[in-house]
Amino acid sequence: MRVVKVPLGSRSYSILIAPALLERLGAECRKLGLGQRCAIITDTNVAPLLAARAEESLTAAGFAPLRITVPAGEKSKSIARVQECYQQLAAHRLERKAFVVALGGGVVGDLAGFVAATYLRGIAFVQVPTTLLAQVDSSVGGKVGVNLPAGKNLVGAFYQPRLVLCDLAALQSLPEREFRAGLAEVIKYGIIYDAPLFRRLERELPKILARDAGVLAAVVARCCEIKAEVVGQDETESGLRAILNFGHTIGHAIEAISGYGKFLHGEAIAIGMVAAARLSASLLGLSADEVERIRALLAATGLPVAIKLSRTNRTRLGEAMKLDKKVSAGEIKFVLARKIGAVEYGQKVPAALIDMVLAA
Amino acid sequence: MRVVKVPLGSRSYSILIAPALLERLGAECRKLGLGQRCAIITDTNVAPLLAARAEESLTAAGFAPLRITVPAGEKSKSIARVQECYQQLAAHRLERKAFVVALGGGVVGDLAGFVAATYLRGIAFVQVPTTLLAQVDSSVGGKVGVNLPAGKNLVGAFYQPRLVLCDLAALQSLPEREFRAGLAEVIKYGIIYDAPLFRRLERELPKILARDAGVLAAVVARCCEIKAEVVGQDETESGLRAILNFGHTIGHAIEAISGYGKFLHGEAIAIGMVAAARLSASLLGLSADEVERIRALLAATGLPVAIKLSRTNRTRLGEAMKLDKKVSAGEIKFVLARKIGAVEYGQKVPAALIDMVLAA
Repeated sequence: MRVVKVPLGSRSYSILIAPALLERLGAECRKLGLGQRCAIITDTNVAPLLAARAEESLTAAGFAPLRITVPAGEKSKSIARVQECYQQLAAHRLERKAFVVALGGGVVGDLAGFVAATYLRGIAFVQVPTTLLAQVDSSVGGKVGVNLPAGKNLVGAFYQPRLVLCDLAALQSLPEREFRAGLAEVIKYGIIYDAPLFRRLERELPKILARDAGVLAAVVARCCEIKAEVVGQDETESGLRAILNFGHTIGHAIEAISGYGKFLHGEAIAIGMVAAARLSASLLGLSADEVERIRALLAATGLPVAIKLSRTNRTRLGEAMKLDKKVSAGEIKFVLARKIGAVEYGQKVPAALIDMVLAA
Repeated sequence: MRVVKVPLGSRSYSILIAPALLERLGAECRKLGLGQRCAIITDTNVAPLLAARAEESLTAAGFAPLRITVPAGEKSKSIARVQECYQQLAAHRLERKAFVVALGGGVVGDLAGFVAATYLRGIAFVQVPTTLLAQVDSSVGGKVGVNLPAGKNLVGAFYQPRLVLCDLAALQSLPEREFRAGLAEVIKYGIIYDAPLFRRLERELPKILARDAGVLAAVVARCCEIKAEVVGQDETESGLRAILNFGHTIGHAIEAISGYGKFLHGEAIAIGMVAAARLSASLLGLSADEVERIRALLAATGLPVAIKLSRTNRTRLGEAMKLDKKVSAGEIKFVLARKIGAVEYGQKVPAALIDMVLAA
């Protein structure tokens, strides 16, 4: 088992990474000194595959789990769904020492985390991410929240889990498209922080796409390490943490104007990263060779690397970007790369240049 | 001007107490280095009296305030109202550096604070409490949140304001009943922490009821000091902070079973405090004389000190108490008094005794 520590003082926690970890969920929760009652929040895709095993493990360790299943998909990241979860927790008398287990992908983790952050002013929660995207990204670092009609993740909190348990076995049953979308965030870590990781991904892509357990374990652990390092330095995104948003400003806007669902998050981010790489070439001198390596690795992973937008949709994209949480005084700030492995945040980008890069 | 500091490390803030402070709102916000845009969240009672002055002060200091007015009353502490506030903030493009001003009583402060705590994962907020209850209690300490159909304050966060501005002039226009209800919490501070304050309240009650500015200023400041000391030692209610809930376990339950609205919070708490004093006599040896002094001071303030409950309603009250956030492993824990000025939290009370005390 690989263990990555997220160093946040009294809010520190561990990320455990191994195959067949779900069977240890109850035992690991036991070590945290939590109350007996808990709620597993999961979705209609994951529940039939994994919820019974999670419940068995918790019950065997002496916990009394309640199961709350929400519809799979981004639409469950809504205030209405949050309210339903609250009502279930209250109806089953979950108290302050109770805890929430998020069993699923990013949507479930974000929703369940926000519920845990705000029910009774905050109860403990444990992340059991079951997708690659959630294992390397959304389950670590404490960003939880839901969407508003006006934009993605506009409501939420910084609220750290007490434990993250990455069961690598769950990755074996992921649909191909979702697995590849998760790799977009893996590639992002290479670009923003770790050139050797990027080279490894270039070199071992076939093994990764074949879901080779050994390579996957190493790669997931390395991504978690990077995220833990970044979050440990800047929990609430007042500075460095912004680098994790490489490709996300445009990516989020693409998700927004296409109505959340046409593109998976990782797919939108892939397009956003290629655009950000091109902006980086114009503004920070990223070499044409590295722009091409970024594009090529994403394309080889089977991810979209460009989007055809009408003039109307380019305008809508611009509007959507202005709602990004990183906007300050009306100015959109980008994360741009100087080279693979080294990025800078807070970069101003003229709107015309964004337009040009997207039209290319 | 009196200044009380709430010592919470990087989340420390000041409570300013003086007449005519509303005119200084803009200037005081200026000192905090907040963004230009802000939202004043207020209610239909307070808006016609004070919102224009708050806006003028903010505008004169260079801020661009948006006004959000919610219906007066406890019903506005709902998820639906939170969602409406989010949508307004998003529609007006409030960014992370924007801030929320809560202008009103406890309901407005709790609602606006929760909105601020969760919009964009948290933006700054400033409390401008306009009722006695809010000035001495709810605006200080960072408890924010809303109600669920299942119970009061079941959703929320610990989220500290950046500034609390108590304009004593606002107290002069409070309806009599509301002013007296606020005094219940003032009396509570005497019981839980400060026997000399309790004696002062006994002695100077006529002046206080006449809203003598000098006495009120001193009393409000002392209550804020006590709350700041307690919260400074235990921000998230893992221990000592529980003493602030003297009278609240039964009080909250009375509010719940009477459908939030029949009793003002302070009135329900007054009944709860007399009941808690009687329980204290049975369990912690509080003297009969002091039980009577507590009852007499509340009664002289014009507050209810007992409630007539049918057997059915006593059962409902018991059920409602079990939903209290301080319940642990199904056990309701009370704050009880050893003497006036000294209480103990985490006290177990047999259900039969509660029943007996309420039937008395």
